[in-house]
Amino acid sequence: MELNFTEKQTKNVSFTCKIKRTLHTEKSSFQEIAVLETIEFGKMLVLDGTVQTTIEDEFVYHEMITHVPLYTHAEPKRILVIGGGDGGTIKEILKHPTVESVELVEIDERVVQVSKKYLPEISYALNDPRVKINIRDGIEHIKNINTKYDIIIIDSTDPIGPAEGLFTYDFYSNINKKLTDTGILIAQTESPFFNKELIKNVFKNISSIFPIAKLYLANIPTYPSGLWSFTIGSKKYDPTVVNISAKYDINSKYYTKKIHNSCFVLPEFVKELLI
Amino acid sequence: MELNFTEKQTKNVSFTCKIKRTLHTEKSSFQEIAVLETIEFGKMLVLDGTVQTTIEDEFVYHEMITHVPLYTHAEPKRILVIGGGDGGTIKEILKHPTVESVELVEIDERVVQVSKKYLPEISYALNDPRVKINIRDGIEHIKNINTKYDIIIIDSTDPIGPAEGLFTYDFYSNINKKLTDTGILIAQTESPFFNKELIKNVFKNISSIFPIAKLYLANIPTYPSGLWSFTIGSKKYDPTVVNISAKYDINSKYYTKKIHNSCFVLPEFVKELLI
Repeated sequence: MELNFTEKQTKNVSFTCKIKRTLHTEKSSFQEIAVLETIEFGKMLVLDGTVQTTIEDEFVYHEMITHVPLYTHAEPKRILVIGGGDGGTIKEILKHPTVESVELVEIDERVVQVSKKYLPEISYALNDPRVKINIRDGIEHIKNINTKYDIIIIDSTDPIGPAEGLFTYDFYSNINKKLTDTGILIAQTESPFFNKELIKNVFKNISSIFPIAKLYLANIPTYPSGLWSFTIGSKKYDPTVVNISAKYDINSKYYTKKIHNSCFVLPEFVKELLI
Repeated sequence: MELNFTEKQTKNVSFTCKIKRTLHTEKSSFQEIAVLETIEFGKMLVLDGTVQTTIEDEFVYHEMITHVPLYTHAEPKRILVIGGGDGGTIKEILKHPTVESVELVEIDERVVQVSKKYLPEISYALNDPRVKINIRDGIEHIKNINTKYDIIIIDSTDPIGPAEGLFTYDFYSNINKKLTDTGILIAQTESPFFNKELIKNVFKNISSIFPIAKLYLANIPTYPSGLWSFTIGSKKYDPTVVNISAKYDINSKYYTKKIHNSCFVLPEFVKELLI
């Protein structure tokens, strides 16, 4: 018997993975949640039919959304993650010795619970005493909090369904108000091959709110096109001029201090999206 | 009616593209050749079920296999391309003003003819007077020629079927003998996510033959994992120290002079393959 999972990555392209078995499926109040055991990528978390993370390649996404902004900031102490209920981003954040507290705001409690149960290799850091988990809507949370953060990470799903509002000018603008004077916003911003308009719009919005806006890239095989973008909005620190080599070391499988600089060097067709 | 083309990228992962229609299919003496009209990537050349190139993303592969070695060499005049019957690599080579002659050695005449007929956007440079096309086996050709080249480009299919011998120590060693004292070999060397052993072996072989060996990366959405590697063997010029910014300009959509340096900055897991 051959079992397959297929994701429609765009209207006209799809990605199919042979699976050994389905470890979990449910329909939560927000989305369809599945954990599959794939042959090529190990266990895989799927939300509404879209690959979120896999054991084999999670390191690229989680390292790159985390270490670039955390090494850019001189002393990141207080971090907020919006989305990211699988805990992979938290796991990477806690590698930085200056970090005192991490807050996770995840809309769907079931993502956290399912990840804790089925993906301990990724989610283990959710139990760390420095981590506080808030189950609520990130958009509402940002409006209502009084705290300020050094870094806010938008670790969202694609801009359809529950995550749509996480890619808007208003949301970035509200985040700006909840960052310290040296604060940094970082958002995952989809594929430069398949989501050109989204990248253009997000970059325009973040550039209009923050004095420093930069886009960088990483290679994630299970994400559409294999090339993924991240957008930084920063109040003080420029990620492309910071002296990374002088900083403390951490363990990583993708990120290196040299990649910190090279990931901002964009192919011509991506540069053109940001003008 | 929905028509789909599916490539099995690995034993356990496949990539499916909706197509409008099949423009051409045939079984040549060497392989199955198809030209499909896809919705997402425009026309696509497929050999033995594997995507070779598409109108939408050919620029990445062809620019990156060409401009990195040609800008590395001080004055590339005489170039040999092994494989590459679609002409995309030739098209990029001819952008360099120093180039006097390009020879293409393609085993399958039908690839050249089909590309000329169905993919003129990619193949047009095959008609340039500086280009000479030899229909023969690259391995035999390299053994028998008396000419020497400034740059030899191995623009091959995957290392199964007709291209298997193009990834061996003996072949690289024979190429070395047909390069000038300042010559450069460049080979496409598959995906760092899916072809780790191949990359290790090729790099070990090329390192043992050439004083300078380097691997670099580019993002190609229609190739397995979306991340692709190229390996350089060089007798004199180191691609990572050459002063690219002082050189002439060319038009490109992916390659930039800054990417010339950044493409050699490898993720930690890729660096580890080369030790």
